[in-house]
Amino acid sequence: MVQEALVEIRRGTAEIIDLERITFLVERFFKTGERYKVKAGFDPTAPDLHLGHTVLLQKMATLQRYGADIQFLIGDFTGMIGDPTGKNETRKKLDRETVLQNAQTYKDQVFKILDPEKTQIMFNSKWLEALGASGLVELATTFSVARMLEREDFDKRYKSQTPISISEFLYPLLQGYDSVAMDCDIEMGGTDQKFNLLMGRHLQRIYNVGKEQAIIMMPLLEGLDGVQKMSKSLGNYIGVTDSSLDMFGKVLSISDVLMWRYYELLSSKTLHEIGQLKEGVQNGSIHPKAAKEALAMEIVARFHDVKLAQNAKLEFDRIHAQHDLPSDLETFTCKGPIWIAKALVDSGLEPSTSQARRDIAQGAVKCNQKKLSDAQWQIPEGEYVLQVGKRKFIQLKVIS
Amino acid sequence: MVQEALVEIRRGTAEIIDLERITFLVERFFKTGERYKVKAGFDPTAPDLHLGHTVLLQKMATLQRYGADIQFLIGDFTGMIGDPTGKNETRKKLDRETVLQNAQTYKDQVFKILDPEKTQIMFNSKWLEALGASGLVELATTFSVARMLEREDFDKRYKSQTPISISEFLYPLLQGYDSVAMDCDIEMGGTDQKFNLLMGRHLQRIYNVGKEQAIIMMPLLEGLDGVQKMSKSLGNYIGVTDSSLDMFGKVLSISDVLMWRYYELLSSKTLHEIGQLKEGVQNGSIHPKAAKEALAMEIVARFHDVKLAQNAKLEFDRIHAQHDLPSDLETFTCKGPIWIAKALVDSGLEPSTSQARRDIAQGAVKCNQKKLSDAQWQIPEGEYVLQVGKRKFIQLKVIS
Repeated sequence: MVQEALVEIRRGTAEIIDLERITFLVERFFKTGERYKVKAGFDPTAPDLHLGHTVLLQKMATLQRYGADIQFLIGDFTGMIGDPTGKNETRKKLDRETVLQNAQTYKDQVFKILDPEKTQIMFNSKWLEALGASGLVELATTFSVARMLEREDFDKRYKSQTPISISEFLYPLLQGYDSVAMDCDIEMGGTDQKFNLLMGRHLQRIYNVGKEQAIIMMPLLEGLDGVQKMSKSLGNYIGVTDSSLDMFGKVLSISDVLMWRYYELLSSKTLHEIGQLKEGVQNGSIHPKAAKEALAMEIVARFHDVKLAQNAKLEFDRIHAQHDLPSDLETFTCKGPIWIAKALVDSGLEPSTSQARRDIAQGAVKCNQKKLSDAQWQIPEGEYVLQVGKRKFIQLKVIS
Repeated sequence: MVQEALVEIRRGTAEIIDLERITFLVERFFKTGERYKVKAGFDPTAPDLHLGHTVLLQKMATLQRYGADIQFLIGDFTGMIGDPTGKNETRKKLDRETVLQNAQTYKDQVFKILDPEKTQIMFNSKWLEALGASGLVELATTFSVARMLEREDFDKRYKSQTPISISEFLYPLLQGYDSVAMDCDIEMGGTDQKFNLLMGRHLQRIYNVGKEQAIIMMPLLEGLDGVQKMSKSLGNYIGVTDSSLDMFGKVLSISDVLMWRYYELLSSKTLHEIGQLKEGVQNGSIHPKAAKEALAMEIVARFHDVKLAQNAKLEFDRIHAQHDLPSDLETFTCKGPIWIAKALVDSGLEPSTSQARRDIAQGAVKCNQKKLSDAQWQIPEGEYVLQVGKRKFIQLKVIS
């Protein structure tokens, strides 16, 4: 049991510091039922989570099954500074109201993954404000400028003469102090957070709280392209608030290799179950697309519900998988809204708008398998399959 | 009038930033009677002031005559960090109680120089505590790490890998914020404080208080040796709590050149009066020793009173200036306590301790003009004039 738990806990992690302590905590839970505290901090500047953010949440959900009480920390105080980690310039400050709005959005989203019974939502303004100016000065005595400048991104910025605000030096200290105030046993974070995560251990030692937290670091999730990390700005993401259909379609679009990576980091299936699936795909008893559909269904069901997941699958099939559509449909992209006759001409399906109007009038033009009758239709943003007669098809993408 | 005031204000200063603003403030005072705020911060870690510290206080007293309301700032908050300026390592933190005790000592001493009617004693804990943790973080956003590391002492320490605590980076910011909170027009300090003094201007600009303080920097006072700066640790100081006799004697011991420097920086005499004195000494109408005695009397009267100053002069004369003492008395220094007979032999006044004992028994040995009778006397620390017979003298210095 303990071994199985530890295998699931270690699954997909990038690095673990103090595995002995984690083993001890899990063993104690199985023996005595005593629970332990696992902290993960979220910076409330990015309220629209994407699947990359949920890698941590999935691991937290796993830990909940093995004795963890999750301390879901919303850095409403530190959010006013903004974590400079990995950024090349000083972040803009968020005002308090925005921070609280963003925090609410987090709360709305996290219980789609975490067990609310075993989760405490915390705000670090509680103890960081209470620290007061003198407490903060005291905290700032515990670390040196030189050691702070050793942090990779600070080092780079300092050397390239990109300004580092002094408040940014306070950020890792404040984040580390959270671990003191929260008395936490394990902290989780991304690999890019290693410096800050270690600061928690450092400060627990300095403040003499009688424990030093173990650390679990998760890798950054690859985006839909399978190469770069998932990110809003790169556009290669699946947002947790994406529509069920979008979400389903995006999962279906990933490569088979990336699918197994997503299974490892995002699926609630056990490693054993995933192993069986993989075996099925390898010996040909399961089609890779079926495995991908199962993953897509699981993810849509998580962020919407099972019914919407089923509908998404049906809708997706209807659009993409009808047997009378060619499998090598060409895509034509244009700005919208666009007049249907112009779209037919621009995409090459019709020689002229007058011909297009005639064909529409004769019922020879279909959009998404349905006959069109309105020759004046202005097509709004979206994806469509246009068809003229029996043989001419195009996938039309109307963008803003 | 204004011109005369400005001459007195500029007297002895090392550097002034924004003389235009000072001129404006003084002119306005002479025209309308409107007063202005002059801040000087004192770090409550050195409660025993020496004359070096009073150079600033003298200038503040001068400004009080020309319209300044003095904001005598006791850095009880910043004192918990300790100003790292010019120090080669992180200072020890003072506990709150010590800081407050030291602050009381300051208060006891400053009104010997400043006009209490025009002085407000302030403690920066008042507004710095109120700043809270978030206010302090906000403050820390206003300055960059690189610019802070440009400060000479930080730069040296960083390059020599001497740790700089992050709290030390907060010190100049906090000191600068004092100027914002105190709404001050002029700040005064030593030349070594230039970086911190400019921070006050910087933050008044950032916090948009509608003014930028002028800055008056005073030089460091030379110690009794006339070379190194006056300092407790170098032993070349006159403490404001020294006895009247010590104080008088120490002033008398300085060189004539240093005397004029002390007149410039420490005397309440006007430049005009000092000019007359100097002229008198130059044309021979005033003996340099008389000028030095006048300075000594002024200083003793300031920190004790006029009567004690007169007594000190009389006592000093009695010891040092009796006409039967040679003027070129040699000094012999030894460790004490020392047996009188041994001192007489070691200093060369007597050929042997047995001869010394005989002379004492016969009343031929004097100490400070008084006949000695106890041949077993162990001489404690201090300075003495020993005399054997009519012609043999020595100044004996017994040290620990």
